[in-house]
Amino acid sequence: MLKLQVTDINKKVWSILETVKLHADERIDQLYANDIQIIQSTKVFSFSLDAVLLANFTEPTKKETGTVVDLCAGNGAVGLFLTAKTKAKIIEVELQPRLADMAQRSIDLNQLTAQMEVLNIDLNNVTEFVKKDSVDTVTCNPPYFSVLPTSKKNPNQYLALARHEITVTLEQTIKQASDLLKTKGKAYFVHRPERLLELTELMKKYRLSPKKIQLVYPKEGREANMILVEAIKDGRDGGVRFLPPIVVYEEQNYTPMVRKILYGKTE
Amino acid sequence: MLKLQVTDINKKVWSILETVKLHADERIDQLYANDIQIIQSTKVFSFSLDAVLLANFTEPTKKETGTVVDLCAGNGAVGLFLTAKTKAKIIEVELQPRLADMAQRSIDLNQLTAQMEVLNIDLNNVTEFVKKDSVDTVTCNPPYFSVLPTSKKNPNQYLALARHEITVTLEQTIKQASDLLKTKGKAYFVHRPERLLELTELMKKYRLSPKKIQLVYPKEGREANMILVEAIKDGRDGGVRFLPPIVVYEEQNYTPMVRKILYGKTE
Repeated sequence: MLKLQVTDINKKVWSILETVKLHADERIDQLYANDIQIIQSTKVFSFSLDAVLLANFTEPTKKETGTVVDLCAGNGAVGLFLTAKTKAKIIEVELQPRLADMAQRSIDLNQLTAQMEVLNIDLNNVTEFVKKDSVDTVTCNPPYFSVLPTSKKNPNQYLALARHEITVTLEQTIKQASDLLKTKGKAYFVHRPERLLELTELMKKYRLSPKKIQLVYPKEGREANMILVEAIKDGRDGGVRFLPPIVVYEEQNYTPMVRKILYGKTE
Repeated sequence: MLKLQVTDINKKVWSILETVKLHADERIDQLYANDIQIIQSTKVFSFSLDAVLLANFTEPTKKETGTVVDLCAGNGAVGLFLTAKTKAKIIEVELQPRLADMAQRSIDLNQLTAQMEVLNIDLNNVTEFVKKDSVDTVTCNPPYFSVLPTSKKNPNQYLALARHEITVTLEQTIKQASDLLKTKGKAYFVHRPERLLELTELMKKYRLSPKKIQLVYPKEGREANMILVEAIKDGRDGGVRFLPPIVVYEEQNYTPMVRKILYGKTE
């Protein structure tokens, strides 16, 4: 979970808050770089640095008439952050009603109802709600961990579903991403390094060609703990590029590059 | 081509040099970290930083009775550097007679004839000379560039063969590496980032599971221009780790980490 300072909620937000209800376990965090407020709950779901870096890595369509779909949206962080980069329609797809509701209330809170909507559905059915081959950009921060008989799942059901492939597998998210995308549309995934090759193989299986990869290292001298992958639908195979790496911490502090992403400035 | 200072050849080497002939275009360079002298020729073949980083990345078998095979050995740099890490037998496989001869003379020069040998053969026939499923460690710095009708080949035939897949394809090198290795034996490849996914797919096809990847970036803020991959024969799929990245230059100088690899010290 990402630690952000509790936001100084401005007057405008207070007036909206009168209509946006917070549950007892919820708080509002702010992504300063984007001036976005997000309803969070340590009990239910809080976005992590992964979501911030995925939004930072994503190059969403610039077309105002375009469509962006965020699969496994959680509390909607990735889509909310992307509003700083595009005026396209942004659709958040989230299975868990409680998380979808948090996402919807954050959309209300940020007065983004004209640009964003939440689909509280199983992503395996997404093409019943969003036309196949119609989407410009898909983002996805899927559950990272396979469900093996031996794997220790979180006893908190909300977090277990978000972290483990209980309701959706990596292959299903990739298949749906590909089905949604138009030719030359782009998919953006964040995942763990140990599953990169599985991810790229599945992408290939579903007509997505990896084009850019960015590795995230927790500190200098440490192994990577996150990967970001851009793939293009029906693109030519081969020619993947590795962007400059992101290093998250130096000593106990965020590095300048991460502070810039989080706060919009390096200080 | 890697620029090293011309070595201060010591007396012992001078006495060996009397029996090791140098061609007019050749010179002797030294890898200071390993105290190894290598016969080079800008006209024919000089090892590059890629070979140094491949040897640095490789964890050769520690068994004195073990075998290491270096495919696409060129002037033998990788195998020569590996003598600092293992007492195992090291076999250099090189197709071009002129390069194989350079490698052999460097072995003589370094008095490593007891540990090393050169096979001047087509690597596609390597298992006629080295028993299948018998090798502990294979290293390979293959030609990086596909041969397409449009690709500009080096008019220098020596360099063209070393850089372009004229006499050997990536698939052939991986197949032979796999054939040579015993179960749980390890292969180490260096290649260009744009071919990483092709490399890992071919590895999978030939029973090699990628386990470690290291990316090399020319400078901070630049895209990677080299990848190093360790794969294990008949290993479990999945679980690849990304080692801390290598950054080669800061300003016009090698970074401390690269100076350490080249000179054995950071100053």
